[in-house]
Amino acid sequence: MQLHRDDVVDGALAILDQYGLADLTMRRLAGTLSVQPGALYWHFPNKQALLGAVADRILAPMDRPVVATDWSGALTELAHRLRDCLLTYRDGAELVSSTYASRLTTNKGRERFSSAVIRAGMPRDQAELAAYTLLYYVLGHTVDEQSRMQMDSAGALADPAGEPADATDPTARFDFGLQLFTAGIRHRLGADAH
Amino acid sequence: MQLHRDDVVDGALAILDQYGLADLTMRRLAGTLSVQPGALYWHFPNKQALLGAVADRILAPMDRPVVATDWSGALTELAHRLRDCLLTYRDGAELVSSTYASRLTTNKGRERFSSAVIRAGMPRDQAELAAYTLLYYVLGHTVDEQSRMQMDSAGALADPAGEPADATDPTARFDFGLQLFTAGIRHRLGADAH
Repeated sequence: MQLHRDDVVDGALAILDQYGLADLTMRRLAGTLSVQPGALYWHFPNKQALLGAVADRILAPMDRPVVATDWSGALTELAHRLRDCLLTYRDGAELVSSTYASRLTTNKGRERFSSAVIRAGMPRDQAELAAYTLLYYVLGHTVDEQSRMQMDSAGALADPAGEPADATDPTARFDFGLQLFTAGIRHRLGADAH
Repeated sequence: MQLHRDDVVDGALAILDQYGLADLTMRRLAGTLSVQPGALYWHFPNKQALLGAVADRILAPMDRPVVATDWSGALTELAHRLRDCLLTYRDGAELVSSTYASRLTTNKGRERFSSAVIRAGMPRDQAELAAYTLLYYVLGHTVDEQSRMQMDSAGALADPAGEPADATDPTARFDFGLQLFTAGIRHRLGADAH
């Protein structure tokens, strides 16, 4: 049976979801797929490239259209969708966060952020920077949120009672940061207009 | 010779800086310190607790006083200092980012962020959320920035020419996000005042 590129990514996602990022090795993946490791390298030159393809799959819903018609609604919707994508798979946030640096993911989520900011009236060069700001906020938030969820379900949290600020619903906390971000864009656009 | 807690943290930081986070194991650390693994567990019940202590050491400069006298200057200074702390050690951003979820670091950096936001006039509960927003932004930014630096020095970057937005100096990009953040606080305080 021929091994397709998508089969390799499917297998990698299955290992990720069941065992976590630390156990996602080329050797283990080959074993799961009942092929020699060489068969994987025919599709992906190295693990970094494989992780880029896995990140692409995790982020695929970012390509779907948004419902919101205004820029801040679109940004909020896209940021929530990015968080949802990362939370869908075990260690999804950590995988995308550590893989993003290689720029091997082809997903255009960040470009969609910047389009929305351009629509708000910000020049392209600044909108690109703002898109990075939002991306980094979502990644940083979700890595911590998902790690805590996973530690909690493994019974490994040091403070089961939680700190006061941790009592906040993660979605509400995430939303607060998004609101600060859009308010920052509004403030900047207002200041530039004067 | 007696093994002190600080010696263990020193040894862990040395391994981190020379070999990276993936090679920081209790076994390797015991070997470097020429002790049995049991001697480490006398100081730290598990690796998570050790990483918390390493994070504390990395973040120690966050306790020093700030020079700026206004809230936005203080926030900017503290955020830059956090980034500098993370960039000081190989994989420092990744270590603190992944360790933060355990809440085993005792560093009060986040509390210093919220104090500055309270000084700006924001109620405590919102200021705590804003402090998380800033923390997540700094972590997300610095994990990506440091990964790219390390990939670049290892000659492992997929796009040596860089994408257009990547041509921006990381410090300038980091500053842009900080300015958006403080503008967001200003906007919110202004809106609340009306």
